[in-house]
Amino acid sequence: ASDDKGGDAAAAKQRKVWPHHKPHTGQMMPDDTFKGRVALVTGGGTGLGKGMATMLSKLGATVIISSRKKEVLDKTAAEITALTGNQVHGVPMNVRDGEMVKAAIDEMKTVCGLPDIVINNAAGNFIAPSERLSSNAFATIVDTVLNGSAYVTLELSKKLMEEDRGGVFLYTTTTYASTGSGFVLPSACAKAGIEIMIKSLGAEWGRYGFRFLGIAPGPIPTKGAFDRLDPTGRFETAMLDMIPANRAGKVEEMANLAAFLVSPYASWISGEIVTLDGGETVQNAGEFNQLRQVSEQEWNMMEAMIRDTNKKGST
Amino acid sequence: ASDDKGGDAAAAKQRKVWPHHKPHTGQMMPDDTFKGRVALVTGGGTGLGKGMATMLSKLGATVIISSRKKEVLDKTAAEITALTGNQVHGVPMNVRDGEMVKAAIDEMKTVCGLPDIVINNAAGNFIAPSERLSSNAFATIVDTVLNGSAYVTLELSKKLMEEDRGGVFLYTTTTYASTGSGFVLPSACAKAGIEIMIKSLGAEWGRYGFRFLGIAPGPIPTKGAFDRLDPTGRFETAMLDMIPANRAGKVEEMANLAAFLVSPYASWISGEIVTLDGGETVQNAGEFNQLRQVSEQEWNMMEAMIRDTNKKGST
Amino acid sequence: ASDDKGGDAAAAKQRKVWPHHKPHTGQMMPDDTFKGRVALVTGGGTGLGKGMATMLSKLGATVIISSRKKEVLDKTAAEITALTGNQVHGVPMNVRDGEMVKAAIDEMKTVCGLPDIVINNAAGNFIAPSERLSSNAFATIVDTVLNGSAYVTLELSKKLMEEDRGGVFLYTTTTYASTGSGFVLPSACAKAGIEIMIKSLGAEWGRYGFRFLGIAPGPIPTKGAFDRLDPTGRFETAMLDMIPANRAGKVEEMANLAAFLVSPYASWISGEIVTLDGGETVQNAGEFNQLRQVSEQEWNMMEAMIRDTNKKGST
Amino acid sequence: ASDDKGGDAAAAKQRKVWPHHKPHTGQMMPDDTFKGRVALVTGGGTGLGKGMATMLSKLGATVIISSRKKEVLDKTAAEITALTGNQVHGVPMNVRDGEMVKAAIDEMKTVCGLPDIVINNAAGNFIAPSERLSSNAFATIVDTVLNGSAYVTLELSKKLMEEDRGGVFLYTTTTYASTGSGFVLPSACAKAGIEIMIKSLGAEWGRYGFRFLGIAPGPIPTKGAFDRLDPTGRFETAMLDMIPANRAGKVEEMANLAAFLVSPYASWISGEIVTLDGGETVQNAGEFNQLRQVSEQEWNMMEAMIRDTNKKGST
Ligand SMILES: NC(=O)c1ccc[n+]([C@@H]2O[C@H](COP(=O)([O-])OP(=O)(O)OC[C@H]3O[C@@H](n4cnc5c(N)ncnc54)[C@H](OP(=O)(O)O)[C@@H]3O)[C@@H](O)[C@H]2O)c1
Ligand SMILES: NC(=O)c1ccc[n+]([C@@H]2O[C@H](COP(=O)([O-])OP(=O)(O)OC[C@H]3O[C@@H](n4cnc5c(N)ncnc54)[C@H](OP(=O)(O)O)[C@@H]3O)[C@@H](O)[C@H]2O)c1
Ligand SMILES: NC(=O)c1ccc[n+]([C@@H]2O[C@H](COP(=O)([O-])OP(=O)(O)OC[C@H]3O[C@@H](n4cnc5c(N)ncnc54)[C@H](OP(=O)(O)O)[C@@H]3O)[C@@H](O)[C@H]2O)c1
Ligand SMILES: NC(=O)c1ccc[n+]([C@@H]2O[C@H](COP(=O)([O-])OP(=O)(O)OC[C@H]3O[C@@H](n4cnc5c(N)ncnc54)[C@H](OP(=O)(O)O)[C@@H]3O)[C@@H](O)[C@H]2O)c1
Repeated sequence: ASDDKGGDAAAAKQRKVWPHHKPHTGQMMPDDTFKGRVALVTGGGTGLGKGMATMLSKLGATVIISSRKKEVLDKTAAEITALTGNQVHGVPMNVRDGEMVKAAIDEMKTVCGLPDIVINNAAGNFIAPSERLSSNAFATIVDTVLNGSAYVTLELSKKLMEEDRGGVFLYTTTTYASTGSGFVLPSACAKAGIEIMIKSLGAEWGRYGFRFLGIAPGPIPTKGAFDRLDPTGRFETAMLDMIPANRAGKVEEMANLAAFLVSPYASWISGEIVTLDGGETVQNAGEFNQLRQVSEQEWNMMEAMIRDTNKKGST
Repeated sequence: ASDDKGGDAAAAKQRKVWPHHKPHTGQMMPDDTFKGRVALVTGGGTGLGKGMATMLSKLGATVIISSRKKEVLDKTAAEITALTGNQVHGVPMNVRDGEMVKAAIDEMKTVCGLPDIVINNAAGNFIAPSERLSSNAFATIVDTVLNGSAYVTLELSKKLMEEDRGGVFLYTTTTYASTGSGFVLPSACAKAGIEIMIKSLGAEWGRYGFRFLGIAPGPIPTKGAFDRLDPTGRFETAMLDMIPANRAGKVEEMANLAAFLVSPYASWISGEIVTLDGGETVQNAGEFNQLRQVSEQEWNMMEAMIRDTNKKGST
Repeated sequence: ASDDKGGDAAAAKQRKVWPHHKPHTGQMMPDDTFKGRVALVTGGGTGLGKGMATMLSKLGATVIISSRKKEVLDKTAAEITALTGNQVHGVPMNVRDGEMVKAAIDEMKTVCGLPDIVINNAAGNFIAPSERLSSNAFATIVDTVLNGSAYVTLELSKKLMEEDRGGVFLYTTTTYASTGSGFVLPSACAKAGIEIMIKSLGAEWGRYGFRFLGIAPGPIPTKGAFDRLDPTGRFETAMLDMIPANRAGKVEEMANLAAFLVSPYASWISGEIVTLDGGETVQNAGEFNQLRQVSEQEWNMMEAMIRDTNKKGST
Repeated sequence: ASDDKGGDAAAAKQRKVWPHHKPHTGQMMPDDTFKGRVALVTGGGTGLGKGMATMLSKLGATVIISSRKKEVLDKTAAEITALTGNQVHGVPMNVRDGEMVKAAIDEMKTVCGLPDIVINNAAGNFIAPSERLSSNAFATIVDTVLNGSAYVTLELSKKLMEEDRGGVFLYTTTTYASTGSGFVLPSACAKAGIEIMIKSLGAEWGRYGFRFLGIAPGPIPTKGAFDRLDPTGRFETAMLDMIPANRAGKVEEMANLAAFLVSPYASWISGEIVTLDGGETVQNAGEFNQLRQVSEQEWNMMEAMIRDTNKKGST
């Protein structure tokens, strides 16, 4: 009662759990949204890729998941099929290897037809001070993330064009692809390249019936990402303070957003990257956002001082 | 057969009608997504606002539509209710008038409770060379678009905070809010202000349980916008050439995107503006995108010339 | 010696004072760069405006400084003239008052001819939690910052067009005009509007011989800004940690950059906003930049853990 | 006299040649700005690189120019020295070859000491429809542009850190690095990666005394760029209509901007990329900028129609 301006710590805490921030993680779209369609998810055996593959399968798509580890793919494929009843194929492919990408695409064509929904999600990353990076380490990440995505895009789209078909390409980028960030330099540079691929081809290939899209996620706990980005688990709590939503993201939220973007409900969205990060990016970026640590009492005092300045200022 | 590189004009045309660009305009989300929720749409009596109000109503929300013209609101409210069976209230309000905004919010509270889904969509705009603008014309648009949105945001959020509730605010911006554009100067400046409001409050008020979002639409035919932006109808065709999707947007596409963003399926998206424009923005922006007018024959010739340059270049 | 990877705290400190970060604050451009030219600086009686006015005067321009307080203007004008030997005129003007802007421009024309170098630098601002803002407080800042800049721009450019002259308009924006920031909401929205004015008119009015430019400064200590943004002086030290250059900016650095941008050496730059902030914006924005607090020892440990994960990962 | 609104075609033309758009291309900064400093310019034997090398040499720096062709380097080095009287060294290096980069840096150290001003300007590029690109063509450009820049940056900075020195790195990017563009896909992706390198290291390595900067040029005629981007010369005129300044850029304008950015006058600018393009980017980007083709008469007509709509609208 002593505070009608937005509240004390306790009230603030309470508001955080307000329903809007309670995520709906269930299926959002109609059952048959992707009926008769074939979707490829690279890095689809684990983490976010697995989540997106599962949702597309639920929504009726025939799904191909692809990465380097056949046994992981097979296990995940079986798991998803058991859940959804729809076909899921594991096709091994190292995206860094241009020839292997071509061969894998031929295999996909044989197995279930060319995918025209393509989620380029495979990536490598790790944290390190940039002065510890060798030239080689830099090139390896660029090879996987940027060149790998380009190979899949270029080789698949040519085949689709030959069949006079278009398609939709979605890429998993990251929030620091547009802001930059220290300590993840190669990944930042490579993912920035992907974001510009989305914008470049979103423009250039509209005329061939293609859409290009991205999702830039903030921290969503997956084993793959967190073992390399937060090996000690030390930053996970610190990270929460950086996120206005006061929680990490969920794989299912990524999956629902991805399914929406590649669906015909979003057929007028192209060349666009959607940030999914609980507000982290805007909170970090704004110069004065650290002032959220200032207490009500301090604000009262400062308000008085500023008023005083303005009075003097306007003499 | 003479062309294996992406095709001649006819094939290109054909690909344009490829299924992905055939929009799904029906309802995308579960029936009861907004059951028990109250949503306000400013400018909700016409155009995009009416479309969003209709979709939210279909999905179970009690909807308030608001603008200056009571009779338009009443007509639209009745129309939507007839369609969806859910309550729609028309509450007149000139967003430029801070006092009227406060009074209207009090009225809303009485009628159906405070909305915690708020779509700031009301706006004024017209095309004109900037040298024809008076200071007054500039200020009037800023008043409606930027100040009006701020009044609704500030006054409503304070009331929600008093009730210890959060909420979600969505704003209709425009593609040129981030790129700038001649001939719509006041609207561009004002909408840019709104986009920064989204980013600023998306950061600052996460802790109070609020999300802030935007949609930046490209051309979606509505009477209100097109009478003032293309009074002669002369630019409508020219515009299509600027859009990779080769068509204007549909009100229902806007409505589905908006419904998704304000829903709990998107509860980890905040501080973000989604561009919905068929790829227009990226196509306009890219320096070499005009080269889409170059024919296959010309490309063959240029390819040969460049190869020649490279050969000489590497002696 | 135990650390060849970028160093311990002491070494790091030492490097910080490395020559490159020792600013040159003297005059950079030739003496007569602005000989025969007339320049207007709004808010030119104090702070950054005074700094820019002084530099332009040093470089040969006849300068008009303008703000609400005649006595401040007169004092500054005399001071600059004493230093440079060139004419400086104080013309009082409240930029929020459209009629007064017109009258002041007429006065300028009489006193020394219309300025064709115009620095829109006047602004009002203060920090406050957004839930403490009244609708009126919001509109007042927008009026000064966005509308005020627009009035000066529109009224002056019309007069210049009548005389068949072009010109160059430079605006002082701020880093949070593009990132957004809590706690300075009205200023953020208004300055965002200005940045889009720069982009809009940079495009539209090139054909009339106008250039439009911005400088987005980070923290540069001036009495005006810091009394309202850091009344207790408490944040000044905290701020330093946010700036890669490890120091606040200097008024003379702003002045040299501004002089360059409005000079004919930069006549092919238009529609552009240059950030001058010691790297603060990119450091804040990047998700992992907080890792600068991690010690060498911790990095060694994490490196080992990640290597281990990769090894396991590739079995 | 019949037109007081911004003028007829003839007047507009006249204004275009208005003094502000007449570039000053002479030396802008004091003679000894870089006295005692060593600067490296990759791709410094030709085009923009040669222009920047020449300016730095004029301003007192010892300059190293580097690219694949020794004979070109030697010729340019001799030419610049003849002009400025200062040492210029040609050190051959293929930036794509990490080992050669290391060896070349060792050679530089021997010849004149490590450079602490580094301009990463070497690049490869060509126009082509993206469906004509092989995976290999994509990777080759990425290798030169992105990886090459990274190798020079990582290897040189480590050596500088060992000597407890900082430095300033400037990169030549391009306007479509941030907007994306069709028909130059690999270059767009690779240069986008560089822009994020600037932002990432601008943040991360401020503490080691480094600044990171970029210049994003629009079309500046050089033999190297234009033979590959406009082999038929057909687009050069079309391009002019896209540039508000109504002319292409000049090598000396690039050189003056670069010299400013790497100088101690700009020591508080870091993590920033400056666009130098005569306003091209903002003009292309803005949705309604095509309306510059509308005549005064048509505007009169449209103004009347819109006024009419507003009248009807407000009944
Ligand atoms: N989780 C987050 O917080 C977060 C945030 C921002 C962005 N992201 C992005 O989200 C995507 C998925 O990450 P995640 O968190 O789900 O981690 P993850 O489980 O480690 O996913 C990475 C996937 O990429 C595959 N992959 C790696 N290198 C490959 C190669 N050369 N060829 C083919 N596939 C390869 C991996 O499978 P194999 O090992 O079997 O090849 C793995 O399935 C990545 O693009 C990541 O950058 C994640
Ligand atoms: N359609 C497009 O292509 C397009 C593209 C980009 C952005 N947009 C944006 O989309 C939004 C909706 O536009 P629209 O195309 O649907 O056109 P519209 O039908 O003209 O919608 C504008 C609405 O704003 C209301 N309004 C105007 N001034 C108001 C005031 N002072 N107070 C309260 N309400 C006011 C109008 O109702 P009253 O006259 O009854 O007040 C009207 O319902 C606008 O923000 C517009 O800028 C549209
Ligand atoms: N210093 C920083 O760190 C920093 C950082 C980012 C941006 N900026 C921007 O830099 C600019 C200058 O700020 P500063 O730091 O130099 O502070 P300052 O000394 O307070 O400058 C503000 C100037 O604006 C004038 N002004 C205010 N309201 C006016 C009105 N209604 N009409 C005409 N003039 C008016 C003031 O003079 P009167 O009171 O006499 O009218 C004063 O000379 C501002 O645009 C500010 O937003 C500063
Ligand atoms: N001119 C424009 O309009 C324009 C516009 C935007 C951006 N740019 C950028 O400006 C920079 C300079 O271009 P420019 O117009 O001056 O064209 P340029 O004369 O062709 O410059 C390119 C330079 O890069 C060198 N180079 C190419 N591959 C290399 C490699 N593997 N290793 C080392 N050096 C290599 C070339 O020398 P060698 O052949 O001897 O190796 C040449 O000196 C480029 O980054 C370009 O992308 C130019």
